[in-house]
Amino acid sequence: MMVKTEQIQVKTRGHGEVIDITDAVKQAIRRAKLTVGTATLFHVGSTAGLTTVEYEPGLVRHDLAAAFERIAPRQAVYQHEQTWHDDNGHAHVRASLLGASLAVPFVDGAPTLGTWQQIVLIDFDTRNRSRTIVCQLIGE
Amino acid sequence: MMVKTEQIQVKTRGHGEVIDITDAVKQAIRRAKLTVGTATLFHVGSTAGLTTVEYEPGLVRHDLAAAFERIAPRQAVYQHEQTWHDDNGHAHVRASLLGASLAVPFVDGAPTLGTWQQIVLIDFDTRNRSRTIVCQLIGE
Amino acid sequence: MMVKTEQIQVKTRGHGEVIDITDAVKQAIRRAKLTVGTATLFHVGSTAGLTTVEYEPGLVRHDLAAAFERIAPRQAVYQHEQTWHDDNGHAHVRASLLGASLAVPFVDGAPTLGTWQQIVLIDFDTRNRSRTIVCQLIGE
Repeated sequence: MMVKTEQIQVKTRGHGEVIDITDAVKQAIRRAKLTVGTATLFHVGSTAGLTTVEYEPGLVRHDLAAAFERIAPRQAVYQHEQTWHDDNGHAHVRASLLGASLAVPFVDGAPTLGTWQQIVLIDFDTRNRSRTIVCQLIGE
Repeated sequence: MMVKTEQIQVKTRGHGEVIDITDAVKQAIRRAKLTVGTATLFHVGSTAGLTTVEYEPGLVRHDLAAAFERIAPRQAVYQHEQTWHDDNGHAHVRASLLGASLAVPFVDGAPTLGTWQQIVLIDFDTRNRSRTIVCQLIGE
Repeated sequence: MMVKTEQIQVKTRGHGEVIDITDAVKQAIRRAKLTVGTATLFHVGSTAGLTTVEYEPGLVRHDLAAAFERIAPRQAVYQHEQTWHDDNGHAHVRASLLGASLAVPFVDGAPTLGTWQQIVLIDFDTRNRSRTIVCQLIGE
């Protein structure tokens, strides 16, 4: 049993962009030469989150965004914006609801994903960002 | 320290059905003969998710469904459905928001759940499905 | 590799109170004398949940609450309340959507959080509560 920690770095344009990080996670498992265990993925920061989704344009460019707009509309009043005089209150709320962490088992050296299930970062911030996802593997 | 991986299989009717998988998780821990560690549960697929809830009919048959209908109404327009000519766009969005993974510690051979807290799969798809949840235990 | 399990106890006033438990998690890691590994946090109970957020008053006292009010309004009809003749149906629904578990990697003896990212419990119940969060560390 061992622990291996890597960082996955991605550049995003924010505004709800959905980035597929499945290949990066697969590569991290392969580099670690681990066969079976759990990959804990954790987004460092408070305006993006992690989940899984079928990575196809309809969901990724429209449908997920429409749901987040219902939960935390971009044009609602956010006291966070009054604190900092910025415009990303909705981004913080959406990220907290989505969640910063995802735990994915791997078996035979590969994550146990479905065929149409990808691991994604959703960046809700209102500008271009460089994002770090910690990918920590515990296994053997 | 060791890793044990099992699959929990359930049949569902979809349409937001909530399935209690607590006993299956408890049995997996018992079979593994582990005393203390973490159970990582992961739903394989993109139209169902995992959480915990007090498993009683009011919440399970009505209240959770009402909230998901606010977030991703069944009758809204989903571009996913235009891509695939199907009717489960809301199921994908709800599943991504709920999340595919859940991490539950176990101590003395049992998960650290509250008395009125059960582990559930919620299947949002629009037809009967056979579902697989990976239950991976790391502990000693 | 070893497992260490602690309990974090907090007193809350419910009604969506957001409690910062970051220091308690950091102390648990320090006490365990572990350098690298994963902290699995799990809220025991069905009317509160865990996430990360920038812990500042605007988000914590107003903006998160406004989003949860959209998802599961306090004054909506909950069949859970008809089952138990209580008033916390919205609390159960919000907690299930937020999620009971959070997995946070730690490296060099500290969680890999962003500068403006804190680990929080959100208590949705409608009265004062004493809450238990299991903090289980697996690492070396």
